[in-house]
Amino acid sequence: MNQLTNLSPAEVSAQHEQDAKDLTRILPASNKVYIEGSRPDIRVPFREISLTDTPTGLGGEQNLPLRVYDTSGVYTDPNVSIDLNKGLPWIRQTWIEERDDTEVLTGLTSKFGQERLKDIRTADIRFAHIQNPRRAKAGKNVTQMHYAKQGIITPEMEYIAIRENQRQREGVDMRQHAGQNFGAQNLREITPEFVRQEIAAGRAIIPANINHPEIEPMIIGRNFLVKINANIGNSALGSSIHEEVAKMTWATRWGADTIMDLSTGKNIHETREWIIRNSPVPIGTVPIYQALEKVDGVAEDLTWEIFKDTLIEQAEQGVDYFTIHAGVLLRYVPMTANRLTGIVSRGGSIMAQWCLAHHQENFLYTHFDEICEIMKAYDVSFSLGDGLRPGCVQDANDEAQFSELKTLGELTHRAWEHDVQVMIEGPGHVPMHMIKENMDLQLEVCKEAPFYTLGPLTTDIAPGYDHITSAIGAAMIGWYGTAMLCYVTPKEHLGLPNKKDVKDGIITYKIAAHAADLAKGHPGAQARDNALSKARFEFRWEDQFNLALDPDTARSMHDETMPKEAHKSAHFCSMCGPKFCSMKITQNVRDYAQNQKNASASEEVDSEVESGLQAMKNAYHEHGQKLYHKV
Amino acid sequence: MNQLTNLSPAEVSAQHEQDAKDLTRILPASNKVYIEGSRPDIRVPFREISLTDTPTGLGGEQNLPLRVYDTSGVYTDPNVSIDLNKGLPWIRQTWIEERDDTEVLTGLTSKFGQERLKDIRTADIRFAHIQNPRRAKAGKNVTQMHYAKQGIITPEMEYIAIRENQRQREGVDMRQHAGQNFGAQNLREITPEFVRQEIAAGRAIIPANINHPEIEPMIIGRNFLVKINANIGNSALGSSIHEEVAKMTWATRWGADTIMDLSTGKNIHETREWIIRNSPVPIGTVPIYQALEKVDGVAEDLTWEIFKDTLIEQAEQGVDYFTIHAGVLLRYVPMTANRLTGIVSRGGSIMAQWCLAHHQENFLYTHFDEICEIMKAYDVSFSLGDGLRPGCVQDANDEAQFSELKTLGELTHRAWEHDVQVMIEGPGHVPMHMIKENMDLQLEVCKEAPFYTLGPLTTDIAPGYDHITSAIGAAMIGWYGTAMLCYVTPKEHLGLPNKKDVKDGIITYKIAAHAADLAKGHPGAQARDNALSKARFEFRWEDQFNLALDPDTARSMHDETMPKEAHKSAHFCSMCGPKFCSMKITQNVRDYAQNQKNASASEEVDSEVESGLQAMKNAYHEHGQKLYHKV
Repeated sequence: MNQLTNLSPAEVSAQHEQDAKDLTRILPASNKVYIEGSRPDIRVPFREISLTDTPTGLGGEQNLPLRVYDTSGVYTDPNVSIDLNKGLPWIRQTWIEERDDTEVLTGLTSKFGQERLKDIRTADIRFAHIQNPRRAKAGKNVTQMHYAKQGIITPEMEYIAIRENQRQREGVDMRQHAGQNFGAQNLREITPEFVRQEIAAGRAIIPANINHPEIEPMIIGRNFLVKINANIGNSALGSSIHEEVAKMTWATRWGADTIMDLSTGKNIHETREWIIRNSPVPIGTVPIYQALEKVDGVAEDLTWEIFKDTLIEQAEQGVDYFTIHAGVLLRYVPMTANRLTGIVSRGGSIMAQWCLAHHQENFLYTHFDEICEIMKAYDVSFSLGDGLRPGCVQDANDEAQFSELKTLGELTHRAWEHDVQVMIEGPGHVPMHMIKENMDLQLEVCKEAPFYTLGPLTTDIAPGYDHITSAIGAAMIGWYGTAMLCYVTPKEHLGLPNKKDVKDGIITYKIAAHAADLAKGHPGAQARDNALSKARFEFRWEDQFNLALDPDTARSMHDETMPKEAHKSAHFCSMCGPKFCSMKITQNVRDYAQNQKNASASEEVDSEVESGLQAMKNAYHEHGQKLYHKV
Repeated sequence: MNQLTNLSPAEVSAQHEQDAKDLTRILPASNKVYIEGSRPDIRVPFREISLTDTPTGLGGEQNLPLRVYDTSGVYTDPNVSIDLNKGLPWIRQTWIEERDDTEVLTGLTSKFGQERLKDIRTADIRFAHIQNPRRAKAGKNVTQMHYAKQGIITPEMEYIAIRENQRQREGVDMRQHAGQNFGAQNLREITPEFVRQEIAAGRAIIPANINHPEIEPMIIGRNFLVKINANIGNSALGSSIHEEVAKMTWATRWGADTIMDLSTGKNIHETREWIIRNSPVPIGTVPIYQALEKVDGVAEDLTWEIFKDTLIEQAEQGVDYFTIHAGVLLRYVPMTANRLTGIVSRGGSIMAQWCLAHHQENFLYTHFDEICEIMKAYDVSFSLGDGLRPGCVQDANDEAQFSELKTLGELTHRAWEHDVQVMIEGPGHVPMHMIKENMDLQLEVCKEAPFYTLGPLTTDIAPGYDHITSAIGAAMIGWYGTAMLCYVTPKEHLGLPNKKDVKDGIITYKIAAHAADLAKGHPGAQARDNALSKARFEFRWEDQFNLALDPDTARSMHDETMPKEAHKSAHFCSMCGPKFCSMKITQNVRDYAQNQKNASASEEVDSEVESGLQAMKNAYHEHGQKLYHKV
């Protein structure tokens, strides 16, 4: 089954069981809660983390549960039973039907899709419950942008407004620094109408194919929480369908807002079906990868017809956004000749190869309006690919890269004329001081269409740690205005990520995205920091772990140093040992400050200073002044 | 022996053997080389990484070895035999003696040092080859700053000039983006005279106690390469002397430029002696920790006399810089009362406790000139501690923090009046958009004395990953002008770091420091990125691993996905599999661009476009155009 790890069937089966357990285990001290919108079928999920009370000696107050954004879907809802063979509930179905602008087809309309359905060799790996696909009625446009431009607030938009607000209970510490957001708009409250306006203006997108009714709607735009994407996908060399579905659920469990399925191996079509049917988050793909498979890997054999059939095939499965490298123009290709690392985007190099071989303009560019016609019949969003992104620090911000970006700006406008939703992909490898130029140019030429960047990696010298080299760049560009960050795992440049790598990549990118939210001053973003820091200060270790992005790792790292149960609840910090308990001292400082305040109100100022100081000293000694707590 | 991991004696012994092997194993494909200065005893070490030739099909040129900065000392010099019991060679001894301004004392002058020497209980753990300490002759000042102000270029300064230049051979790709350095001065070549000027101006320090003749001199200042510090040290709860020495050599092996020994457990004095005698890099300490041990952990029992004896004790052992929390003034303490996490610096909280208990001004502040007198007799540098640094995002940049920073500015001037070298410690927890304010204020009030920051951590919500939350802030503040970054390990807030955590922290901070060097445009910084990216582009996998900050991890991650030897040398990237070889395509692009250039020179422009395009197509097909290499 797994040619990479050479597991026996028994081991594979054990692995599957473990995956299934991991899948549905809710994070510690957490409950799934739903906030209902204006109608009962708008039920927006949150994870609510319960907290313990402050110890009596430190004030004893109650700490209210904290609500956090939850991408894990119903996998972590104990009231829903999961069956991967059947897929997730169709929560958007009614909304789509109510709009009455789509029809259910009698079958797949792509040639390839039809062939695969008939292929008996793939019968045993085929998802069993495939439904007939849905498409816009003739003359209809079913994109969220189209509705928004007409002033319609869809249930998806309302759902998102509730989700972005992360409403906390009264009494949660919502203090926060004013952010610096470079012209992004941060509201106190995000309303459904605001969501509609942002979608209408093209400043945000809701990737939501009508054939993916399973998704919990989410938004990508710089006036919202910064999102992250995780790439999964098998390759010619490795991994099974099961593993890819497990990676998807694993990634959303830890916080992936969207998933890109970049499979390039065999059975791409079937793998994708399994992933989409079981995914609570939008799925993106790069259709040119599959198109290339169909011509046996020979780029020059690609045709518009094969590509078009692939778009329809994937749109009818429910892919929510397509990466399309339509900005790789023939005349830009020679600009990469003197680069240190040439063209490193797979899609970019395929199109460059095609352009050179045929001496014609990129067919994705010349057929762009026809692509838009397909996109709007299913509401697939564009992720306009940066096929000429730099592959090393030296090639950053060069003529090839920025020429393509300007073309992406032109294509954005063309897509918007069709009311098709668009985001723009960005670099790559860029040293820190050259990052902002990317963001500024993107905002200018793409008129604030959401930017979606890979990293950027801020140095080339750390293979094995490129989640970190890139998290630095990702946090910065997120702060500057990038709406979604594509994760990079530690295996980048080295190999295909395993489960641990996927998690490392996700947590690292959750950090980058959250750091960006804080810097932008996104409303409510700091509540989790405040709650965790208060828990830390009060030695509520369990609360500190439970509030962490990765409770499991935080807990196990702590247990490693503090193995005994007695120590675990110790009122001192393991870094310092029992003698240095710096946080405890603050209690003394607070007592002192309070006394000083009381005292200064009742004292003569000058002559009595000396006796006042003496009084303070006495008061301090009366007020505990103990450095250390007994456990 | 190890109460944390409960190892048996045999296991401990095996661990020691492994440590010893790790210690002296040179990194793969690397040679220790020395560049000689103006005299034969100035021999500056570099690690030279050998590279293979470019494959014939891609041009076949020779790739010259790359020299990189090397902090690992003679441990990685196969011509030097290591004996931890005897310590490292005294490479600075002659330089110190030649200056003829110091005398060898007849014995330790600190009361505590004398007592410990007589204590038979510690005889078996005492370093055997303790020498009599050295001190400035009466009336002499032996600081590097003192020499610099008099126009003297010391051998240490010349050594550093050679080291910072990282001279590469003619022919190495030195292309680099112009940096943005916020007023720092980047020279094409760093001369000994420039080093002298920077030291004289206080913009850089050379931590180099006359009792630490073992160190390979290094410099900390914003016009030089950004440095990193690693903290080690036992606590009341864990780890042995052996483990601390092993951590030190392990840390310098991976790139720590200085080490802080933050031990708080028993046998601090003896542990420190072992570390210093075996350390090729400067050692810093926080003397108040040991002073507190001497009064059994009761902060209010601390006295100036006990502290002073501790300074002398440690100065005579050879500590190169002292963290002194002299800016925690009595009047600032109440400013922390309303903080979310109060005072989190251990030193800061000890001094706050003392101030409150006695109702007197911080004795480190009132005795500051006497401290300077001790510092200049041994050339110990100040690291003025930020005792009121913020412990969470909410407390960043508050009145307490910035009030202390202003006092540190005042103390900087007082130290400079004594010609004592100074750097300034900085935060802490700071969201991204509030980082620059820290740097700007520090530069202003401390007149460009080097800034030395912990992180800063850009969010509080990721315990277990604070090497990453802080690397984001560290890279940014390094770019803005911070001279040295204090590493944070994944165990921060959770427990004491083990060997793996130390390495993770180091590599992460090497990334942050290097990203900052690139952004500042430090001369030659990009050479390693260029070499690695070229190796990547040319599928020279082994060179890519060997040029990595952590060759072992890069290699093992790659081998994990590509287990077979045949695959390892495969001319395709494992992320893409054999069909998508995007980098290979660039060769085609180069051929094409060359042909186009040739063609456009000889063609009529307008009417012949069509036939020209056809000609290009033919030329392309003639020139290989193959996507894939056979292995």
